[in-house]
Amino acid sequence: MSENTGNCMNPCIGNGRALLDLILSRRSYRGKYRPDRVPREDLTAILEAGLAAPSGCNKQTTSLIAVDDPGILAELRAAIDPPVAGTAPAMICVLTRRINAYRDRCFATQDYSAAIENMLLAIVALGYQSCWYEGHITDADRIGDRLARILGVPEEYELVCVLPVGVANEEIPAAPRKRPFRERAWFNGYGKPLSD
Amino acid sequence: MSENTGNCMNPCIGNGRALLDLILSRRSYRGKYRPDRVPREDLTAILEAGLAAPSGCNKQTTSLIAVDDPGILAELRAAIDPPVAGTAPAMICVLTRRINAYRDRCFATQDYSAAIENMLLAIVALGYQSCWYEGHITDADRIGDRLARILGVPEEYELVCVLPVGVANEEIPAAPRKRPFRERAWFNGYGKPLSD
Repeated sequence: MSENTGNCMNPCIGNGRALLDLILSRRSYRGKYRPDRVPREDLTAILEAGLAAPSGCNKQTTSLIAVDDPGILAELRAAIDPPVAGTAPAMICVLTRRINAYRDRCFATQDYSAAIENMLLAIVALGYQSCWYEGHITDADRIGDRLARILGVPEEYELVCVLPVGVANEEIPAAPRKRPFRERAWFNGYGKPLSD
Repeated sequence: MSENTGNCMNPCIGNGRALLDLILSRRSYRGKYRPDRVPREDLTAILEAGLAAPSGCNKQTTSLIAVDDPGILAELRAAIDPPVAGTAPAMICVLTRRINAYRDRCFATQDYSAAIENMLLAIVALGYQSCWYEGHITDADRIGDRLARILGVPEEYELVCVLPVGVANEEIPAAPRKRPFRERAWFNGYGKPLSD
């Protein structure tokens, strides 16, 4: 498991282009979901991907709760206003403990963001869709606190993000408009394009 | 839960297990690097992976500079004290603009963290190693500011992270000690293990 290439007969591992394609094909999906239940095996794999993200000084500030119980999902949905991800058959709630990695440095936001990105990629790789809902959850009306209460989350954690998980029931959106590569990435100095 | 069987016949995209294996096999590599130059094609693919990360309200607050010019690399290295990644043949410097996504909400840290995680995965997928160096760069002695000056980065950007890129010349480290899954991830409520 520590080799970066060729650790099984699978040509996919170490196949950078395939991973690149996956990274480039991931979208923020805000459409409706099919009602099909997400197998626990898949949810577990997605959670494992999240927990495998690095964390500042290995403080492991991120914790996760997957919700697939229809009753609890309904309670969570009722607390999310305006509603998002209302049709998703599963939801992952991302928790953080904002403890310092050293001195006054806290990397909890970096930690959970890396975990979220891993999960978004795992979700797409397993054939599902998702979207990173954070601002909506942590804005002044503190929806995240209400979700945390429903899930029995202790006070030292903050619930910062919700990721729906499910099979898309609408078309996957096209890539969002982004500034071109040459305006955001350079070689050997600010603003310097690829030359050789 | 995460069997590794049968996925070799699957096409690469949508092959969740292969991606999972990649995510689980990524390590923070702090060893020496081989001097071999990283092809521009690979550096470009890594940068593209970073830019493909989502960003809050699509503000695209993250920019990137790949450095492979030996003279500029030497200048950067001289400014990083104590030294890290001193033997890497390439380095990616991560820049952020801390602009608000809406009202007073800024997601720049989330944005660049997702971009970094994408790049770390792309780096490993392409056969290289790396490590997320952030605290060292943004601590009180502000090494990042010195690196930014060397690279001609305008003041509205902050240089927050350096990622070495190269082929490992030492053994890839074993996984760091992490708390077990059941202490960090639950189903349908805080602390609730996988039951069915």
